[in-house]
Amino acid sequence: MTSRFITFEGGEGSGKSTQARLLAARLKDAGQTVVLTREPGGTEGAEAVRNLLVTGDPGRWTPWAEACLVNAARADHVARVIRPALDRGEWVICDRFVDSTRAYQGAGKGIADAELCELHGRVTDNLWPDLTLVLRVNPVLGLARAGGRGDVEGRFEAHDGAFHARVSDFFGMLPDMEPKRCFGFDADQSVEALAAAIAARVSA
Amino acid sequence: MTSRFITFEGGEGSGKSTQARLLAARLKDAGQTVVLTREPGGTEGAEAVRNLLVTGDPGRWTPWAEACLVNAARADHVARVIRPALDRGEWVICDRFVDSTRAYQGAGKGIADAELCELHGRVTDNLWPDLTLVLRVNPVLGLARAGGRGDVEGRFEAHDGAFHARVSDFFGMLPDMEPKRCFGFDADQSVEALAAAIAARVSA
Repeated sequence: MTSRFITFEGGEGSGKSTQARLLAARLKDAGQTVVLTREPGGTEGAEAVRNLLVTGDPGRWTPWAEACLVNAARADHVARVIRPALDRGEWVICDRFVDSTRAYQGAGKGIADAELCELHGRVTDNLWPDLTLVLRVNPVLGLARAGGRGDVEGRFEAHDGAFHARVSDFFGMLPDMEPKRCFGFDADQSVEALAAAIAARVSA
Repeated sequence: MTSRFITFEGGEGSGKSTQARLLAARLKDAGQTVVLTREPGGTEGAEAVRNLLVTGDPGRWTPWAEACLVNAARADHVARVIRPALDRGEWVICDRFVDSTRAYQGAGKGIADAELCELHGRVTDNLWPDLTLVLRVNPVLGLARAGGRGDVEGRFEAHDGAFHARVSDFFGMLPDMEPKRCFGFDADQSVEALAAAIAARVSA
């Protein structure tokens, strides 16, 4: 069977992680070998970097320091988990990937998109997803939902509303910017309805 | 007074840290305000990243993960310590900077020098040293000297001999590659003689 690399993207509280799990379960039921992973993280080293990124004060890192940390974690994750799985012919489903970097460190913190995409190409040897599912949620509602989880990893959630609005706008535009790879979904529908819509897109 | 940015470079056990301290003391005695710092490190965030880089197994990070971690630390350090000091008209002396990245992750681990220099320019808003003092030591002797310190930060020291030879070769060539900025010194001479030679170059 042919390997596929599918990523989920969206702001806080958009339900990405739940939908990634549901899609992985559906594909496994269909007999597919699936690796379900997340960013930042997915390897021992990358999880250590994640800890630096998602905890502490919102101003803890400068924009480029943050972008480099994200890419350090990704380089490790791609080399040690994602590429090997794809080379074995498996499917990989990843909760956040390059488009989160473009949204958070690019649109959110002002680094040029072209510079982030170029760095991504270098550190991953040009690995881009086959399919990206973008879950759109109102950022205020999404943050309220994420806050309800009692998450200790609150550094990004603690950024101001204008930041989250820029992130949300980027995710809103992404399916139009890259219509062959990226597809948008309304995350305000029920978990079941959203899962069915995503499954239909993956089949197509 | 005009600010100056001076970096020390060289392999393990070349005496960089000692010479950086001696030069800072000499400049302070001459009435200069001096910030003495080091990489990776120099800020709270960058020291946390340093801990990920210099401890653990030699194969802990892929080359690009390592390069991104180094640049994450540098972005923070430049934005929060080096640039502000230079903007105040002070002198900054830094133990390792961009040329260590070119030597270790470039020559040592195979990342193209041009890609590392470009990333450096982006994360630092193009900050290059005014003067770089390269201390040349035989890598076998230098490693033996560094080992004698009983250093717990042994991850780079634990890389193989061929790696250290490539790093040493890069530092050997650097003064010829960039003769206006980089000057080489034989680190096998006495601490006092080396300090005097360095002081003469800084005056010039």
